[in-house]
Amino acid sequence: MSRISLSGIFPPIPTPFKADEGIDYKHLQSNLDRWNQEPLAGYVVGGSNGEFVFLTVEERVEVVRAARQAIPRDRLLIAGSGMESTRETIDLTRRMAQAGADVAILVTPSYYKSRMNVAALEHHYSQVADASPIPVMLYSVPANTGLDLPAQAVIALATHPNIIGLKDSGGDITKIGFMAQETRNADFQIVAGSAGFFLAALGVGAVGCVPALGNIAGGKLAQLLECFKRGDIAGARAIQLPLIEANTAVTARFGVPGLKAAMDMLGYYGGPVRSPLLPLSEADIVELRRVLIKVGLPIH
Amino acid sequence: MSRISLSGIFPPIPTPFKADEGIDYKHLQSNLDRWNQEPLAGYVVGGSNGEFVFLTVEERVEVVRAARQAIPRDRLLIAGSGMESTRETIDLTRRMAQAGADVAILVTPSYYKSRMNVAALEHHYSQVADASPIPVMLYSVPANTGLDLPAQAVIALATHPNIIGLKDSGGDITKIGFMAQETRNADFQIVAGSAGFFLAALGVGAVGCVPALGNIAGGKLAQLLECFKRGDIAGARAIQLPLIEANTAVTARFGVPGLKAAMDMLGYYGGPVRSPLLPLSEADIVELRRVLIKVGLPIH
Amino acid sequence: MSRISLSGIFPPIPTPFKADEGIDYKHLQSNLDRWNQEPLAGYVVGGSNGEFVFLTVEERVEVVRAARQAIPRDRLLIAGSGMESTRETIDLTRRMAQAGADVAILVTPSYYKSRMNVAALEHHYSQVADASPIPVMLYSVPANTGLDLPAQAVIALATHPNIIGLKDSGGDITKIGFMAQETRNADFQIVAGSAGFFLAALGVGAVGCVPALGNIAGGKLAQLLECFKRGDIAGARAIQLPLIEANTAVTARFGVPGLKAAMDMLGYYGGPVRSPLLPLSEADIVELRRVLIKVGLPIH
Amino acid sequence: MSRISLSGIFPPIPTPFKADEGIDYKHLQSNLDRWNQEPLAGYVVGGSNGEFVFLTVEERVEVVRAARQAIPRDRLLIAGSGMESTRETIDLTRRMAQAGADVAILVTPSYYKSRMNVAALEHHYSQVADASPIPVMLYSVPANTGLDLPAQAVIALATHPNIIGLKDSGGDITKIGFMAQETRNADFQIVAGSAGFFLAALGVGAVGCVPALGNIAGGKLAQLLECFKRGDIAGARAIQLPLIEANTAVTARFGVPGLKAAMDMLGYYGGPVRSPLLPLSEADIVELRRVLIKVGLPIH
Repeated sequence: MSRISLSGIFPPIPTPFKADEGIDYKHLQSNLDRWNQEPLAGYVVGGSNGEFVFLTVEERVEVVRAARQAIPRDRLLIAGSGMESTRETIDLTRRMAQAGADVAILVTPSYYKSRMNVAALEHHYSQVADASPIPVMLYSVPANTGLDLPAQAVIALATHPNIIGLKDSGGDITKIGFMAQETRNADFQIVAGSAGFFLAALGVGAVGCVPALGNIAGGKLAQLLECFKRGDIAGARAIQLPLIEANTAVTARFGVPGLKAAMDMLGYYGGPVRSPLLPLSEADIVELRRVLIKVGLPIH
Repeated sequence: MSRISLSGIFPPIPTPFKADEGIDYKHLQSNLDRWNQEPLAGYVVGGSNGEFVFLTVEERVEVVRAARQAIPRDRLLIAGSGMESTRETIDLTRRMAQAGADVAILVTPSYYKSRMNVAALEHHYSQVADASPIPVMLYSVPANTGLDLPAQAVIALATHPNIIGLKDSGGDITKIGFMAQETRNADFQIVAGSAGFFLAALGVGAVGCVPALGNIAGGKLAQLLECFKRGDIAGARAIQLPLIEANTAVTARFGVPGLKAAMDMLGYYGGPVRSPLLPLSEADIVELRRVLIKVGLPIH
Repeated sequence: MSRISLSGIFPPIPTPFKADEGIDYKHLQSNLDRWNQEPLAGYVVGGSNGEFVFLTVEERVEVVRAARQAIPRDRLLIAGSGMESTRETIDLTRRMAQAGADVAILVTPSYYKSRMNVAALEHHYSQVADASPIPVMLYSVPANTGLDLPAQAVIALATHPNIIGLKDSGGDITKIGFMAQETRNADFQIVAGSAGFFLAALGVGAVGCVPALGNIAGGKLAQLLECFKRGDIAGARAIQLPLIEANTAVTARFGVPGLKAAMDMLGYYGGPVRSPLLPLSEADIVELRRVLIKVGLPIH
Repeated sequence: MSRISLSGIFPPIPTPFKADEGIDYKHLQSNLDRWNQEPLAGYVVGGSNGEFVFLTVEERVEVVRAARQAIPRDRLLIAGSGMESTRETIDLTRRMAQAGADVAILVTPSYYKSRMNVAALEHHYSQVADASPIPVMLYSVPANTGLDLPAQAVIALATHPNIIGLKDSGGDITKIGFMAQETRNADFQIVAGSAGFFLAALGVGAVGCVPALGNIAGGKLAQLLECFKRGDIAGARAIQLPLIEANTAVTARFGVPGLKAAMDMLGYYGGPVRSPLLPLSEADIVELRRVLIKVGLPIH
């Protein structure tokens, strides 16, 4: 079996909605057509930026199926298939494989967080990886789940033959470095879950990035990676540092509504979010525009 | 329209599973038959203790429908119908009404917690309450969701004619008192979301309780409420204080697996939990048994 | 040795400063003269509201000595003598006894919070209690220290003959009830560290209160306690609930600057705070005034 | 005035105590004599690893004075002079300058954390920097203080002519990168406050490190810095990654007692900690030894 590489930029794409909150498949395709012109290694479909928690299971599968039509085979389609229960996660992961996903990415179950200890998480992920017809990635995003996947669980799971990596959105760079060290002999790849610490993560052993910012600045992030690979740290830093503020704007600060608004400003289709997310206020849009202009993005 | 009273004890019942994790409707009924002998005012079906996040939408509705068959009309059936999206919450709430629920209880959406500000939460709950054919309750459970429903949102929503109350599982008694004060002129009732602070909550204006402990010690909690109502604080305290340790055992400490194990010890059907929850270890079972015996529960 | 009662209201008095931030002993006395007219059981001197962390050790002792001159013998003077190190805490506690303190109150050491486990805290408090010529109280105030004194440590320390109680400012009412239950056979008294949860704490076994609000509304709080003692819960609640907002204003919301501003509004001497605390803004003062008027305090 | 460089490794040295907890000046000197053989750029004296919160003000000054005798003029002596109050911080900073400190490092005041907003912190640090005869550094260590110095305050203070840098022990690498970007035109240097994220911090613009681990592995850390400076990222990473576990052992995991125990194992004088810190248990010592051997340190 040829090894799947997670090196590169994999934007976690938003799910486009129409005014009535129905899924807008036409704009899903037009966005992908444009992203396909960018130097991206693939896409995460149905992740946190895809508002997966607002989609029915059917919708989650359909969005992946539709995205696959627009994504060339030489770009990875990484599908979010995490659910709270192990049995439903297994079921959805299988369906995602049938719908054309190359890899499944599995957010931590988190509702019963006080019981989600290392043993429970290891058991969950092992069961799903055993049952999955496609390779799986772990996914830790404490800002959303309130749960930080423990390093100890990651290190143990890295030896599973069907678990190929981790998307770490927590950004604790000491922890990332520790996991890189402890999994160095395993077939396991770490990707940064946000552009804010991409260079730092590369420095300690990560190989790629799944950045919300990649939806609007994928070219810059691919360039950062190239600089790093050829040992040009100064060059990589010159790209990284100015992007932090813009990255924060489309993540922690303004969230998915901010990312979608930024896409609208940059010629993609962002469109509405599903409720209870609210669209940005006028003042927030002004501020977002200022930040994007500051970083040199081609705002309309 | 006659006002619905939330005074009394409303255990949030677990969903019984068979060995294969399928729903065990027979034991759902037998448990309810026994609880119906206890001095309870009703039940929460499909709440956090019901492992609702592990059930499909269909299962959630079916469990409510089945429970209704076993719950007499003079006891309230409060059905958990919260989803992350407003549209799905509305849909499920309507289905719960059709399935026989008297009241819907709506956990806070929480995945995009940084965006779940007062405006977003007010909008979400207002939309659902407008659309619901049955009265709704707010539900704040930060230990699971990582989000504490802000007092300001509760106070504003209390004036909605179809929002009748709040289940507060956070247990910040200062906040509960403040909300009781600020909603005193509204048709709005607060219930404690855990038996650990039941007496304290009554003291500052709550009227009832939705306690995990109510599944195994409903009689004692009903007695506590009676003491309080007739002004016998010393009597109420004599019941309350020894119960705290047992309550913690079946909530924060051992979670739903602990509650189900306790039910097995006490002649109810607890049975397995769904994965990724794990059953208690042998050592934990010994400790749980010790705590339950200490409080005088009739362990087999 | 006659047992010291912690039943009653014990305001933690602010340390008055002159415009140059020097201690204003004249106004310390005039404030105490007025408080002595109120139905208070005593005072905490050099606590969190006394800005003790901004005082030198010499100043801390001198303020206690001066306060003792103005405090009648039948009112308790409880002096804050906590330091980070055990040796300095012992030394200061002895000096406080010589300066006239009846009881010493000892904030948790907290700088090395990851090492302040149950064993370390038990050792610290035991050493100090052994060495102290006067009875000592434990003091947990996580909003300031970032450390919540574990119930397990409190329960163990409650049996020490020279440890007479706990001031709990964390306000976790379930924990307070649990500690009351587990220390019921010890000579140990719990007092609420804030007026916001005073009634709730009484309900689960606390006997008194050390409330910032007691500096400006001591009479109301004493009345609340009287209602509770005679079984008039409705009366106690009618006092408690409206006070929560005012209490929050002079604690969590506006802090010591808010308390001092409120004192200035009510005919006491509040005066400046020491830097880095800043005085309230004009807008905050307007808001504070509104809250105090709402609760019926006699604002000038 | 020649600019002071913070490039290099600056161990925050422990304060050696005798068995009776008195300061052991002899071993302070012998430790420094040995560190002076290592490729270090200077020392932080009286920082968190120096147990400064357990020292009297007199002791803090005396330790700096004694250390200065043993520290050659071409190595920086950075003295911890932070206190909770602005006035005492100013006073102590002046005394540290007289005692021979080259730079003062100022931990955030944190007791009244809810009031320590950007305005209060800017005011505090500006006042101290104005009054200080020597350059000052900001110091953010949320694991101890519970307060993370906001980026906005750092960026504003970076323009002050007497504020030369920041020691960041929080380790949020996105924040560090953002501050580096926003202060790029100021005369301001960022140093990593822990060896765990040293390489990552260098990658985003930091220039040095104040690592507890530098007390026992200063040579390795200096080598890491050299690799980085000459563009050898792979070499730097090969040093960085294995050190993370050892670094965690002498910081987050075992704290100052762990650092002192490690020093004892490596031929320095570690000695006892002051109470309420407790010495390591036997089991912890075994584990610490294992970790240090794993990383190749020359354990006796």
